[in-house]
Amino acid sequence: MALLELDRPHGPLAYVLREVGDGSATWEWVYTVEPAHFNPHGVLHGGVVMGLLDTAMGHVVSEAVVPQGRINAAAQFNIHFLLPVRGGTIRARGQIVKIGKRTAVVEGRALDDNGAVIALATATHSLLP
Amino acid sequence: MALLELDRPHGPLAYVLREVGDGSATWEWVYTVEPAHFNPHGVLHGGVVMGLLDTAMGHVVSEAVVPQGRINAAAQFNIHFLLPVRGGTIRARGQIVKIGKRTAVVEGRALDDNGAVIALATATHSLLP
Amino acid sequence: MALLELDRPHGPLAYVLREVGDGSATWEWVYTVEPAHFNPHGVLHGGVVMGLLDTAMGHVVSEAVVPQGRINAAAQFNIHFLLPVRGGTIRARGQIVKIGKRTAVVEGRALDDNGAVIALATATHSLLP
Amino acid sequence: MALLELDRPHGPLAYVLREVGDGSATWEWVYTVEPAHFNPHGVLHGGVVMGLLDTAMGHVVSEAVVPQGRINAAAQFNIHFLLPVRGGTIRARGQIVKIGKRTAVVEGRALDDNGAVIALATATHSLLP
Repeated sequence: MALLELDRPHGPLAYVLREVGDGSATWEWVYTVEPAHFNPHGVLHGGVVMGLLDTAMGHVVSEAVVPQGRINAAAQFNIHFLLPVRGGTIRARGQIVKIGKRTAVVEGRALDDNGAVIALATATHSLLP
Repeated sequence: MALLELDRPHGPLAYVLREVGDGSATWEWVYTVEPAHFNPHGVLHGGVVMGLLDTAMGHVVSEAVVPQGRINAAAQFNIHFLLPVRGGTIRARGQIVKIGKRTAVVEGRALDDNGAVIALATATHSLLP
Repeated sequence: MALLELDRPHGPLAYVLREVGDGSATWEWVYTVEPAHFNPHGVLHGGVVMGLLDTAMGHVVSEAVVPQGRINAAAQFNIHFLLPVRGGTIRARGQIVKIGKRTAVVEGRALDDNGAVIALATATHSLLP
Repeated sequence: MALLELDRPHGPLAYVLREVGDGSATWEWVYTVEPAHFNPHGVLHGGVVMGLLDTAMGHVVSEAVVPQGRINAAAQFNIHFLLPVRGGTIRARGQIVKIGKRTAVVEGRALDDNGAVIALATATHSLLP
């Protein structure tokens, strides 16, 4: 089941859903360097990477729990930034670690154009009701 | 010292710097509910809150280390989401916990229009060079 | 209400409960440097600090929810180590951030003999049933 | 290179090093249920699991950096508790994610006797000098 349409932009930052299934979901975002980006060191704002990972990780939990009549909301999110991003396309894949009765744990990795891992995240989601 | 201009929008999401000084920095963002927001539960995407907190927390560390000829980059960021946001203005304040030789630790709180804490975050920043 | 007896050692590491009430709980542990401590740099093993904080933070949540007929279990714990410990007494105080329906968020600080903050932690607890 | 002797107890909690090499290290601890364990729900204190993971994760980073003349110290540690432990042997494996110039990122998984993952952790280590 896919909760959202593949291959088209979603949300305010226009993230694109590329794949879903088997306890994982992959989203991507094209980073076009713009002078408007305020980070003074010329690297992508961490918020964009966190938003992309949060989207992929939340999505994969939704795929598991919405068919059970439940919804999920991130309660906690932790990220390690491994490499700066200076352009290109970033991809984030969320992967379920555990779906429990009250909470789910999910991990995610974001990769750059070269396949290098730029960020590693884990999160706790509350399952409602 | 203020590294950025007060009271005007910065970056792709147009966050606004409101206050800086005394080891803290406050940024805000006006959340106008738009149908384009893909979150199916009608609440603000966590990525926006994380980006605002990351901005405020990164900023306050920069205020401390840039005058020493150093720059900072988030190495790790952890957030607890406490309340959903359904509209209005959100404010995030970053506060320095410790500036060390190699790393800094910073915490942040995001508040809604009613002054309720919607998120609590802590982060580790690398200091370069 | 105090769930445990004050001023006497509890558990395998003999942590001592010193104070409880007002949404906070304080535990302490005396660190006697012993050659048996395997850390090759002569500093206290992080596990002892994490255990002390986890105890204080779990305790304060229990004080809030056990009277409601619920129990709590740590689902997630994040810590920032700020200073190494080389001896003396360490104290950890847990403080409630939010008690929700399904989860609680709690923060904790550990201090050394000089009152310096040696570690800052936050945690998510599941509330059962 | 093995920094510590295999198959014998180390430190105050007598954790045992079982394997090291290839960017990973495995430690184990036998959990004998004792009435002295203060957790009122009859499950293993989270501090023991965190200490075991911290040991395995710190060890594998040391194996990588000590030969370079550097030492490592945990700056941050995040854990998700997935299953309660009620007895038996727990094993923790640390695995390097990235060794940088100033910091390292490492992940760890703890397993019970049945091979079930009981906890998932990630950490940031400072590398000195």
